[in-house]
Amino acid sequence: MSAGLADAKILDEADPVRDFRRRFALPAGVIYLDGNSLGALPAATAPRLARAVETEWGEGLIRSWNDAGWIGAPARVGAKIARLIGAAAHEVIVADSTSVNIFKLLAAAARARPGRRVILTETGNFPTDLYVAAGAADALGLELRAVAPGAVMGTLDSDVACVLLTHVHYKTAARRDMAAVTAKVHAAGALMIWDLSHSAGAVEVDLRGCGADLAVGCGYKFLNGGPGAPAFLFVAEALLASLASPLTGWMGHAAPFDFSDDWRPAAGVGRFLCGTPPMLGLIALESAIDLWLEADRPAVWKKAARLWDLFADAARPLVERHGFELLTPAAAERRGSHIAFTHPNGYAVMHALIARGVIGDFREPDVLRFGLTPLYLSHQDVWRGARTLYEVMESGAWRDAPARAEGRVT
Amino acid sequence: MSAGLADAKILDEADPVRDFRRRFALPAGVIYLDGNSLGALPAATAPRLARAVETEWGEGLIRSWNDAGWIGAPARVGAKIARLIGAAAHEVIVADSTSVNIFKLLAAAARARPGRRVILTETGNFPTDLYVAAGAADALGLELRAVAPGAVMGTLDSDVACVLLTHVHYKTAARRDMAAVTAKVHAAGALMIWDLSHSAGAVEVDLRGCGADLAVGCGYKFLNGGPGAPAFLFVAEALLASLASPLTGWMGHAAPFDFSDDWRPAAGVGRFLCGTPPMLGLIALESAIDLWLEADRPAVWKKAARLWDLFADAARPLVERHGFELLTPAAAERRGSHIAFTHPNGYAVMHALIARGVIGDFREPDVLRFGLTPLYLSHQDVWRGARTLYEVMESGAWRDAPARAEGRVT
Repeated sequence: MSAGLADAKILDEADPVRDFRRRFALPAGVIYLDGNSLGALPAATAPRLARAVETEWGEGLIRSWNDAGWIGAPARVGAKIARLIGAAAHEVIVADSTSVNIFKLLAAAARARPGRRVILTETGNFPTDLYVAAGAADALGLELRAVAPGAVMGTLDSDVACVLLTHVHYKTAARRDMAAVTAKVHAAGALMIWDLSHSAGAVEVDLRGCGADLAVGCGYKFLNGGPGAPAFLFVAEALLASLASPLTGWMGHAAPFDFSDDWRPAAGVGRFLCGTPPMLGLIALESAIDLWLEADRPAVWKKAARLWDLFADAARPLVERHGFELLTPAAAERRGSHIAFTHPNGYAVMHALIARGVIGDFREPDVLRFGLTPLYLSHQDVWRGARTLYEVMESGAWRDAPARAEGRVT
Repeated sequence: MSAGLADAKILDEADPVRDFRRRFALPAGVIYLDGNSLGALPAATAPRLARAVETEWGEGLIRSWNDAGWIGAPARVGAKIARLIGAAAHEVIVADSTSVNIFKLLAAAARARPGRRVILTETGNFPTDLYVAAGAADALGLELRAVAPGAVMGTLDSDVACVLLTHVHYKTAARRDMAAVTAKVHAAGALMIWDLSHSAGAVEVDLRGCGADLAVGCGYKFLNGGPGAPAFLFVAEALLASLASPLTGWMGHAAPFDFSDDWRPAAGVGRFLCGTPPMLGLIALESAIDLWLEADRPAVWKKAARLWDLFADAARPLVERHGFELLTPAAAERRGSHIAFTHPNGYAVMHALIARGVIGDFREPDVLRFGLTPLYLSHQDVWRGARTLYEVMESGAWRDAPARAEGRVT
């Protein structure tokens, strides 16, 4: 290991956002390197949810839709998330899941480009993106064109209505150049849909600066909104009036409480709401976003890049001696905030590592992922995580891991 | 008032499910007659959610998808709800919102009836049903035929792919004959989609006994799942293999954690899942359903009908002396478990009533609704609620209510 624990300590002492670690309820004896899959629990969230349940629901009952501000939550939390992704407050709402929101935007984008029938996307993407695109193409009479990641831009033609890509890849953490890709897609006359699930909270995102059209993202990864937190959806102001959601539920209506028979979409991005907002999940998400908004975000993202360098440096012997292969691009601007390696015994290695209190995850067929979440990980955590992985390999302890269990999901 | 408080007391003493009232956290000084809109908080739900947040999320982190049974929750809670609606365990899942689930079933039903292009539904239904049907027709190239409630069966023809109706009407509480309607729709060669939002937990529902095809319903009304609780979706076993969801998110995949590029639907009703399950909402809903499953349900539904009779009886002077008009059918088998009246000053009357601690709700343009939830309302509650309404009218207190507030939602 080239960088030592002493170096990590020095980095921690100089860390301008180190105090945020105390704002999370982290279990003792665990180094949590899977916040890219499910973010940790902010300390304020449990009492906030208890109040939502006991006071707002229990005491306020139906009155809380007005009195506790429930009805405004999708727009209010959206406006807060907007500040993390370089959007205007009125361009973002919180609604449904990432999957459902991808469907909405694919349908809306295709309708906004009549005469063009192709949804263009990449193979090897997070599967829900591919599955939803396939299902949308099938249901809406469109054509799905899924090509290798490097071939996407080369197959942009005048048949393409919209391009769906993930900004930071869920497996490799490779990050696309959002401005450059968006510009090329625009030059081809298509609309661009970004999936920010592994970006929001992990790296700086500047949707307005990149001329982005449409985006979705996940509330439960780097944003720490809780398991199955509702997702967010962005529509650039210039496009709003011309886009229609196919999922025209009552919360997207201009006046839902008029209970009229006829659909009339809300003026703003609220037209992409559908059913009644999932308040418990929304309240947990808002609590986490409020914490995010306290942080010096450029400092957070600088720290994220430094944590990555530290892990990569500490992991060099794994590559040199133990058959690990780094999957993530090394240049800071070309990656997100997790680090991924392949190893032929990846499943057993991850199992042994988790048994030692260092939680990363395994993705088929041979990928080990480690989330480097800058709000609640110290440099020492990251160093110790990498060190434990090194020990698992040096000692051969991974050979004792049990056979792969059927039906376990992460 | 014909039935007196003494009669209500006698009914309470004889009530076989009266002990369930203590299993809810009801605010002091309130008679809550709006459980048809947002059900009350079960006492067990707050500690259950605290454990889910602090232990399962906070301590277990990503491991809880396996170790706390999160990943199985949509099917597990669905199987529990199945027992409340006369379905088999494997025919029901919990997912998304009622609105999103209506879209899924409309698209699936239309695909299963190729050559038929019409979605048939009724005007005046809960608006999300109408809006989603209109949006689905528009997006999928179908035709929406929305006719007056009494005209639906008369306009069934060979162009109709599916019929979407609500079992118990959200405003009037009128209940349709599920078996008879389903049989007529089948005879016309179409598929029937029931919205059970105001039925589940309110009245006996026997989906299998009625030969039902497809259904959706709401988790946060009579089921007490909490604000914006996830919804449920039913597909009859015989139809499962032939139906495809248009919202093909990763949780509906046969093997989501294989992360393959190609969509392959789960074998069962799980194919109608979409994104990552909203765990906080699901856990709150499960806690409420577990309480439901403890109750003697035939006794609960018998009590619901008795509460209705009691309110209607106590409200007779309002009809005779104060211009109230009963909207709900009087026959027990033709209604759900709320009671609705029209009154030209309905908004002001409801405002005055709420100010006196009796919470019902107002629906445009002139409807007062009172939910008669049998698990946590006593006969005395219902009698007192009706009595307070009578006093508001007799005293003219409703004339002091402030003018209608813009932007208040219930």
